Amino acid sequence: MITTVNFIGTAFGQWCVESMCAIAGHGLPNTSHVRIASNEHQEPSDSAWRLTGFTSNVRYTEKAERERLSAVQADLGRLNATCAALIPIRKNAAWWTLAQDERRNIFEAQSHHIEIGLRYLPPIARKLYHCRDIGQEFDFLTWFEFAPEHSNDFDHLLDSLRRTEEWKYVEREVEIRLTREIAYRIE
Amino acid sequence: MITTVNFIGTAFGQWCVESMCAIAGHGLPNTSHVRIASNEHQEPSDSAWRLTGFTSNVRYTEKAERERLSAVQADLGRLNATCAALIPIRKNAAWWTLAQDERRNIFEAQSHHIEIGLRYLPPIARKLYHCRDIGQEFDFLTWFEFAPEHSNDFDHLLDSLRRTEEWKYVEREVEIRLTREIAYRIE
Repeated sequence: MITTVNFIGTAFGQWCVESMCAIAGHGLPNTSHVRIASNEHQEPSDSAWRLTGFTSNVRYTEKAERERLSAVQADLGRLNATCAALIPIRKNAAWWTLAQDERRNIFEAQSHHIEIGLRYLPPIARKLYHCRDIGQEFDFLTWFEFAPEHSNDFDHLLDSLRRTEEWKYVEREVEIRLTREIAYRIE
Repeated sequence: MITTVNFIGTAFGQWCVESMCAIAGHGLPNTSHVRIASNEHQEPSDSAWRLTGFTSNVRYTEKAERERLSAVQADLGRLNATCAALIPIRKNAAWWTLAQDERRNIFEAQSHHIEIGLRYLPPIARKLYHCRDIGQEFDFLTWFEFAPEHSNDFDHLLDSLRRTEEWKYVEREVEIRLTREIAYRIE
């Protein structure tokens, strides 16, 4: 089942923008909030940008890795996970013309992408949306949620990934850090 | 560069339908012709169906395999390749929930998908379009072109693929066989 999600840069919404920073290539117009809307086709008139992505089958993860991930990963939407980051990424043409085994080799054998992510589970919950194949300006939209006390861990995670061989193929990356009010559950 | 292509079942067009057959699952409405249109968003009023797909990076092919393929494969549009086949395919949920190494293992180690295709190169030219991630009714649109004298070879290619372990995951497959007039090049 393919799920389409829209991240909309706007003047209102659940997630309040703390910072927006162009890490590689050019950034996105600044907005005060980010709204997440599923399967929305109407462009809200107050939006500065809209990024659309879809969930898909795994592209590199092997069976044993997925079992290790499944054993520890957390769902999105935890009450105490009031910090989030939306990081859209585009890789260059050199990456996309590599064969599957070459990309897999860079992704894990050289860059330890899954291994690095595992170190930060379950505190940092993560979801990947694809968008290269639908003609968007980015290839991936990565979404992370964590509690404020894990903000430093998240910085270390980003730093570790950006030092990898894989990241040499990233030609555009925007980091949008977000917070929301604590949600109180009515008992 | 992502290229989007539309295959349109219609009453006119370059490719004349010789036969349409549902191999697995339900078929498509019969039409007399298939027209190929790039980046067309307007639905022609006389069309019975439209299948849209996009080219993308390779998902299973490894470097050594791609080199073997590149050395022998033929381009589409050869003057003598007056026969074609459009075969839309959908795989089941069990396939898509497999990890990358499990799918690759079934695809090549068990089913020899690339190895079988290589046996029929260069006579059978082939192009793959993806469509699962854009919410289409099929996952792939496969397109083949060959000269009439290679029609039996093409039948053997299909027969070999359909006997594989990989094909146990195919839940819908339609085979549309096509011909066109010989194109004379003006010298």
